[in-house]
Amino acid sequence: MHTDLVAALDIGGTKIAGALVDGRGRILVRAQRPTPAQEDGETVMRAVEAVLGELHASPLWQDARAVGIGSAGPVDASAGTVSPVNVPGWRAYPLVARVRDAAGGLPVELIGDGVAITAAEHWQGAARGHDNALCMVVSTGVGGGLVLGGRLHPGPTGNAGHIGHISVDLDGDPCPCGSRGCVERIASGPNIARRALADGWRPGPDGDTSAAAVATAARAGDPVAVASFERAARALAAGIAATATLVEIDVAVIGGGVGKAGEILFAPLRKALAEYATLSFVQRLAVTPARMGTDAGLVGAAAAALAGRTDTAAMGV
Amino acid sequence: MHTDLVAALDIGGTKIAGALVDGRGRILVRAQRPTPAQEDGETVMRAVEAVLGELHASPLWQDARAVGIGSAGPVDASAGTVSPVNVPGWRAYPLVARVRDAAGGLPVELIGDGVAITAAEHWQGAARGHDNALCMVVSTGVGGGLVLGGRLHPGPTGNAGHIGHISVDLDGDPCPCGSRGCVERIASGPNIARRALADGWRPGPDGDTSAAAVATAARAGDPVAVASFERAARALAAGIAATATLVEIDVAVIGGGVGKAGEILFAPLRKALAEYATLSFVQRLAVTPARMGTDAGLVGAAAAALAGRTDTAAMGV
Repeated sequence: MHTDLVAALDIGGTKIAGALVDGRGRILVRAQRPTPAQEDGETVMRAVEAVLGELHASPLWQDARAVGIGSAGPVDASAGTVSPVNVPGWRAYPLVARVRDAAGGLPVELIGDGVAITAAEHWQGAARGHDNALCMVVSTGVGGGLVLGGRLHPGPTGNAGHIGHISVDLDGDPCPCGSRGCVERIASGPNIARRALADGWRPGPDGDTSAAAVATAARAGDPVAVASFERAARALAAGIAATATLVEIDVAVIGGGVGKAGEILFAPLRKALAEYATLSFVQRLAVTPARMGTDAGLVGAAAAALAGRTDTAAMGV
Repeated sequence: MHTDLVAALDIGGTKIAGALVDGRGRILVRAQRPTPAQEDGETVMRAVEAVLGELHASPLWQDARAVGIGSAGPVDASAGTVSPVNVPGWRAYPLVARVRDAAGGLPVELIGDGVAITAAEHWQGAARGHDNALCMVVSTGVGGGLVLGGRLHPGPTGNAGHIGHISVDLDGDPCPCGSRGCVERIASGPNIARRALADGWRPGPDGDTSAAAVATAARAGDPVAVASFERAARALAAGIAATATLVEIDVAVIGGGVGKAGEILFAPLRKALAEYATLSFVQRLAVTPARMGTDAGLVGAAAAALAGRTDTAAMGV
């Protein structure tokens, strides 16, 4: 009998992952479906129900005491609804009520995916032991979450830490969100690649124009590729420094595909951070790579379910 | 006998104000000295001791159970020290220990001046009843503080909410803090006036080149004066939207001399906020003028002393 078993769902635009997770963050049972992202809302919900059904078939399910959901945003934890940008069939969709029904009435905790990653890094990863931290995912988009005063800070609607859509260039390029000069508009993988191409970088014979290919070129010394990563690093640094200046954090954890670029990103990021994080109380701020792998969303959703959303520090330490 | 009486100090670059304040925020006794800001640290401390001595002379002093200090920053509440930019004689100055000695061993709470203003607005002013708020002072500088989850959020060192020094223009003009494109570098009173003069605005016969004079010209329709306030409003809007996107706030309270400019500031600010605060969970964000007057710093320092720094919501409501 597992007294601390929960079900976790990690809902993104590509896949819906589910798991039964124990009180130490170990994944005991897994299930997964592709997200039918372009279908109507009920079709997407049936994929979620299929994942839950597969978990339900496990004899361990009877020990599950709650369900945690980390969902692509925006979410509204206070209303129990989600409106993921990449899932147009879900707008103010009552996901919490639907999952509660499908899970036999278990309590359901909903947080945004950036907040879920943060819960995982705080529980078991690079933010463990830090009472004030920003965790980020720099990938196709830029997301994040905050730990403040030793506790997860999802905010009233579960979206806090949304660093990808703060403007660090108030006259900058329009962002799909409607604002200008957002961190994501400058630092996401597609924007790193777009800028390198616009400035004259050309892919190799394989035609790969991803940010990973730009990173490879940068490591080989291509100055345009290097400059595109430096620009992304400046935007990330301005955003991280702004966060530290606003709420006082002592570590910024960076994960996601672009976060895996290593020193091509982290070296200019540390340099730029020293330029933007100038006040005495933010100068000791460190940046560090994420430690949780691709299960971070599931582990973080489980952490939220185990803790009633915010008290990840009390777990496993 | 006042069971909820505290002493409060509001320490700025111009004056050191002190008061005995009751549990309802009423100022019962006052004292004040000019800040000898260019003198050595001990001379500045003697001015603080003179203020405390004057309060001590009141028969009410015997009921005081704590001292709250709101100080020009940066402060370091964890170390009990202050390093106000405009008081060069104080660098990592052990103000908490010195005030404790001068106050006969009473407990001392230290917060930054922006956090103090926020405590006052949350207790009795425009942020009352709001669980998540940003309060700002837009004046010679730009400062601020945060209420999160119903409680004051001073951060570990007492400086959180320092919105004046977040960069909203990562390639912008150098700021005296060492960064670039800070909100303060664009939106403070002196920068509103500087920009108007640089763009061709000329003062009236009285030669007044203050931001208040620019506001008067803007109200009379001077396009350069209007444009300078619009630019300040854009920077404030980008900073406020960033704050809301990071921590979820539902109101931004704006005080200080520039905050008193009225619709010349607030009309373009509301318009710009709609452009930068685009995500669903920040669209309901309101901006509103501060309600507390010049005693806000004292009342906020008292609130911190009464509440043990963070629990202003539990008071007076």
